[in-house]
Amino acid sequence: MAEAREWAIGGITSAGQQPNPERHENGEVTFHLKAPNAKGVQVVPLGGDNGMGDGPFEMTRGDEGEWTVRLRPARPGFHYYLFSVDGCECLSPYAEVFYGWGRVCHGLEVPGGNDPGRALDVSHGDVCLHWYPSPITGRLRRATVYTPPSYATDLDRRYPVLHLQHGSGESDRGWTWQGKTNFVLDNLLAEGACEEMIVVMDNGYATPAGVEADPHPRGGDNVFEDVLLGEQIPDIGRRFRTLDGCGNRALAGLSMGAGQAMRIGFKHLDTFGWIGAFSGGGRGFDPATSFDGVFADPKAIDSRLRLLWMGCGRLDGGYESAKTMHETLDASGIAHGWLETEGAHEWRDWQFHLQAFAQRLFR
Amino acid sequence: MAEAREWAIGGITSAGQQPNPERHENGEVTFHLKAPNAKGVQVVPLGGDNGMGDGPFEMTRGDEGEWTVRLRPARPGFHYYLFSVDGCECLSPYAEVFYGWGRVCHGLEVPGGNDPGRALDVSHGDVCLHWYPSPITGRLRRATVYTPPSYATDLDRRYPVLHLQHGSGESDRGWTWQGKTNFVLDNLLAEGACEEMIVVMDNGYATPAGVEADPHPRGGDNVFEDVLLGEQIPDIGRRFRTLDGCGNRALAGLSMGAGQAMRIGFKHLDTFGWIGAFSGGGRGFDPATSFDGVFADPKAIDSRLRLLWMGCGRLDGGYESAKTMHETLDASGIAHGWLETEGAHEWRDWQFHLQAFAQRLFR
Repeated sequence: MAEAREWAIGGITSAGQQPNPERHENGEVTFHLKAPNAKGVQVVPLGGDNGMGDGPFEMTRGDEGEWTVRLRPARPGFHYYLFSVDGCECLSPYAEVFYGWGRVCHGLEVPGGNDPGRALDVSHGDVCLHWYPSPITGRLRRATVYTPPSYATDLDRRYPVLHLQHGSGESDRGWTWQGKTNFVLDNLLAEGACEEMIVVMDNGYATPAGVEADPHPRGGDNVFEDVLLGEQIPDIGRRFRTLDGCGNRALAGLSMGAGQAMRIGFKHLDTFGWIGAFSGGGRGFDPATSFDGVFADPKAIDSRLRLLWMGCGRLDGGYESAKTMHETLDASGIAHGWLETEGAHEWRDWQFHLQAFAQRLFR
Repeated sequence: MAEAREWAIGGITSAGQQPNPERHENGEVTFHLKAPNAKGVQVVPLGGDNGMGDGPFEMTRGDEGEWTVRLRPARPGFHYYLFSVDGCECLSPYAEVFYGWGRVCHGLEVPGGNDPGRALDVSHGDVCLHWYPSPITGRLRRATVYTPPSYATDLDRRYPVLHLQHGSGESDRGWTWQGKTNFVLDNLLAEGACEEMIVVMDNGYATPAGVEADPHPRGGDNVFEDVLLGEQIPDIGRRFRTLDGCGNRALAGLSMGAGQAMRIGFKHLDTFGWIGAFSGGGRGFDPATSFDGVFADPKAIDSRLRLLWMGCGRLDGGYESAKTMHETLDASGIAHGWLETEGAHEWRDWQFHLQAFAQRLFR
């Protein structure tokens, strides 16, 4: 399959590929920042198991006040980072920006490693920004919606829906800009490896009407469950050509979103027949008591749930608890999917999880 | 019409409203940046007639190394700015980011002044990111496409198309994130003030296949005309339910995009029956010779062009040349629309231009 060079791949804001960092043929990258009067400038990876390697990385001052550092990233995939200029946490105007860690930050995209989200010369679906009224929050909410290639022209057809949630400190944009969900699905569809589906990527934060919203939402108490069930799903059903019923509706997410998928999904098995948890949601699992005891009768849950699927990277801080849930489910005779990937709590692993999960959905 | 508080209004990246700058009830704003070891920090408005007022604005250091400055912006609307930390041009991770001036930058949104793009409690259209193959550029290109509220459900209906171009140093995102085209159109439609239409907002840059793209494109020589006519319009026709023919196709733009609308539009009157130029495109206009002499016979152009429309702010550096073209057209007896707005070379004026132009389209 031919590689398609996208005009603005990876770019959430820009017209073209931003020049920072500079990419070398051997896979190394050079970061740049002009700071003529600074005493010290660093590249600061966000997260302890960031695939850029162990930072912060000290930059070196050049003659014109241009600071640089040349690195060989440790792993392919998408890695969050920032700059620090004499202790001032900041961003370069010449590097792409994303939203994660509760702030605007940069992302380094390291090619290679069988990238599930690379842009190939196949049919492409669209990604819609869709606004819907939310009396529960007293706000106009916005969701990001992927529609598959046939959606625009096959007007008599209706589609199943995957609701796909981001992690803490991220937003509804994460699954598109960091995760490239549209290309992951386009690539699977081009190989006939999954069913055509609509993917709804909403904000996992929802503050009740009249309450001031946290400008750096990280999850916690909110009314997202009520918004999802009472507002978003009905709205999507009115505005998109969806198929009804729990057999046609999946709920999945990463990290915080994995927790939401399990907590909300197991409570509403009449709504969601397929549940996916990527790198999260399994901590302290006890089949007798967790999730209001829905797993206490393995046969009952087996008959109601078409698929429970879990994935986690081996370098992920939550790997042991996810694996323990998987083993406990096995020991209890509860059918489920399980995938261990090689990476950490990062987007490349979540892309692999989505790629594997999507192939089992609605079949 | 009730004001709808959008969950993430103005936000290209974020989950919620970013906290920087802080907004005060009297309309003043306080900018923040933590830079504990800096000697001097400034807020730097981009552009000489920026509606924030005459900068740069010196910030004052607080006890914890938090620098602030409190300002009363000069005009409502959207104004680009950056921070400078001891001469290092940079961005705050806690303020929204946009793409303009050939780089990622911040935008201050000053409410008031009869904002055409405010989110109201009306029916909302969707904004699609749409990828299309471009053999001319050897790239996968991405356009941003607004579809009106009825588009999702009125499946037998076809719609006229406005192709709407951004300015130099901006991208296909500008008309959505800075200009809020979707809300401008939603608001007009709610009042029955314009026809339902599809709006295609593409990148105005197009580098031929095999040529390295400028990472900071500012216009100039490119093959956008070939891409628009030969690739984008046919693709949009295949993927969206469009009406055919020049009576159903408009081309407009701001600044560089105004120049493109005139240069490409007047050359292809069989394709575009409606042409709009916002704050640009009129410099040195001579009806006898400009645009390959298409205006030399006023009756001929009148019979071929359904609408030529021009707008410019009185504080815009290009105001005199736009007004001169308007007066020359008048003197030559060539029908056209003309609107003078109160502002400068900024987004609020372009929103007013779009609002006025859209009301005359396809009627």
